[in-house]
Amino acid sequence: MLSASHQQQQVSTLEEDPVGLEDILKAQSRLQGVAHKTPVFTCSYLDKLSGCHLYFKCENLQRVGAFKFRGAYNALSFLRVSKPHITDVVTHSSGNHAQALALASKLLGLRAHIVMPNNVSAVKRSAVESYGGIVVLCEPNLPARESTAEKVVQETGGEYIPPYNHVDIIAGQATVAAELLEQVPDLDAIIAPIGGGGLVSGTCIAAKHFSSRCKVLAAEPAGADDAKRSLESGVLIPQTNPKTIADGLLTSLGDLTWAIVRRHVKQVITVRDEEIIDAMKIIFERMKLVVEPSGAVSTAACLTNEFQKLGFHKVGVIISGGNLDLNKLPWL
Amino acid sequence: MLSASHQQQQVSTLEEDPVGLEDILKAQSRLQGVAHKTPVFTCSYLDKLSGCHLYFKCENLQRVGAFKFRGAYNALSFLRVSKPHITDVVTHSSGNHAQALALASKLLGLRAHIVMPNNVSAVKRSAVESYGGIVVLCEPNLPARESTAEKVVQETGGEYIPPYNHVDIIAGQATVAAELLEQVPDLDAIIAPIGGGGLVSGTCIAAKHFSSRCKVLAAEPAGADDAKRSLESGVLIPQTNPKTIADGLLTSLGDLTWAIVRRHVKQVITVRDEEIIDAMKIIFERMKLVVEPSGAVSTAACLTNEFQKLGFHKVGVIISGGNLDLNKLPWL
Repeated sequence: MLSASHQQQQVSTLEEDPVGLEDILKAQSRLQGVAHKTPVFTCSYLDKLSGCHLYFKCENLQRVGAFKFRGAYNALSFLRVSKPHITDVVTHSSGNHAQALALASKLLGLRAHIVMPNNVSAVKRSAVESYGGIVVLCEPNLPARESTAEKVVQETGGEYIPPYNHVDIIAGQATVAAELLEQVPDLDAIIAPIGGGGLVSGTCIAAKHFSSRCKVLAAEPAGADDAKRSLESGVLIPQTNPKTIADGLLTSLGDLTWAIVRRHVKQVITVRDEEIIDAMKIIFERMKLVVEPSGAVSTAACLTNEFQKLGFHKVGVIISGGNLDLNKLPWL
Repeated sequence: MLSASHQQQQVSTLEEDPVGLEDILKAQSRLQGVAHKTPVFTCSYLDKLSGCHLYFKCENLQRVGAFKFRGAYNALSFLRVSKPHITDVVTHSSGNHAQALALASKLLGLRAHIVMPNNVSAVKRSAVESYGGIVVLCEPNLPARESTAEKVVQETGGEYIPPYNHVDIIAGQATVAAELLEQVPDLDAIIAPIGGGGLVSGTCIAAKHFSSRCKVLAAEPAGADDAKRSLESGVLIPQTNPKTIADGLLTSLGDLTWAIVRRHVKQVITVRDEEIIDAMKIIFERMKLVVEPSGAVSTAACLTNEFQKLGFHKVGVIISGGNLDLNKLPWL
């Protein structure tokens, strides 16, 4: 870690963060009364297991069941003002960004076109449609998804809204940690799951502006550990062939999220799928909360020796989402 | 219902409620900083299905995962003062009262002896033991449970604490609705599941004192509908041979709870097990909350035609508990 942290310091003298305090404040103002102010829960059982006081920020209780609503709504809300002639938005996603964009579009009077692979589950498809999203099916591979999305953009004149590598998306996700630091001001650290890095980079920017002492940790599946390898090597390593149950964390970092992550994330803790499933079951059983695998990764990380050696006393833990197929719980 | 309501009026002129405002205020003061102030959630999907605004009081997020903690702690807290020589408490229960009494005892420096049938699940037994309760096994029938509890009382000099038919238990459970009416003051009604009637009778007393316009409804499994039949006939009819998935609602009303229920409950709405399971799954999927069958009965009742005909606009719904075996979800 020494070399990585040295690298980070060098970088931070050269560049500015692409998202600033004003971006977060504007996002907070746009989300006011629209996004839920999600509750923070504690759990004495998990405190005992982790050896410190954990404060769970429950974004599984956010609209659409995930923090993704914040970024999507913030981006579209700004789009409404910056490009008022735009009536359609487009993305490709089979995850929570799809639902988030569909609901945000509905609320803001836009049409959302969501490109999904033709093997997407009926549950995920109907979730998007229930929020008024228009589903466009394509072959289940990345080139097909990208070319189909591009085609829809051409046909509709719509704006492409990526899931994480976008200033307004990052600023929206930053409101999670900003809100958490209002609810629990004296945290030593916040830990959040990392996939494309939208949530973690937003968390970094919020911590930087609202709590100079609060460190940011990222929690990552061992089977999709591109962020850990990137941070250790100092260069962005894309994720290839990920293998993990945490299906929200399969993607690579983007250039914007990486620029923030490499500079501010103190450490990436990886967890195996068994650890993720154990954490999920504890959250269901003890906290009475429904959490998806990706949403339990940050909790799983808090139960590792690696985390406990860091010696934190008060840690914010972002439970990022709660959307999963309840007919296929992974411990059954 | 006319004859029952007429009966209720006659009775109310003859008797006083066995639990009063002062009992609730004392319970609130004892539980302050000990019980969780549980959150109130809303769900637009369930609002649409029910045709009104529902405010879910999440007692599945209470300590031990159920409202039962409030009554148990209140009763033991008073016992500590009224009978300071008592060191042991006894009950027979295989449900949430067992865990509640075990934790309340631990917090108040008492020993809890919990008589459980010898076919009790390992999960329920270990839950009680994890809170420091001493489990005493007996044959799985009511006479054996009662005689074993009586024997433990004799041997230990302990105080028997029943699960619901007890003034301090009722007063403790009343703090749920008292708190809800603070959180959402202008409710037209509160609906709570009814088994022995501790929660519903407490809800009645709280509504009477804190919101004169708020009606109280009880939700009951069709396969254990003694409260409905009792209210309709005007006499307490014990539950025999109950058949329902809602295993927390199998018991008969007691004389104290019945005295309150018959006077104040506006209506009992019964629901079939399929309706309970549907409501459970909606609560998991949409609200991201883990709820046990008994805890979903009040929500299920809000989805019936019978409820919708009542024409309420704002209704408090008590989700009473979240303890269930996650390896045996009923929709699987």
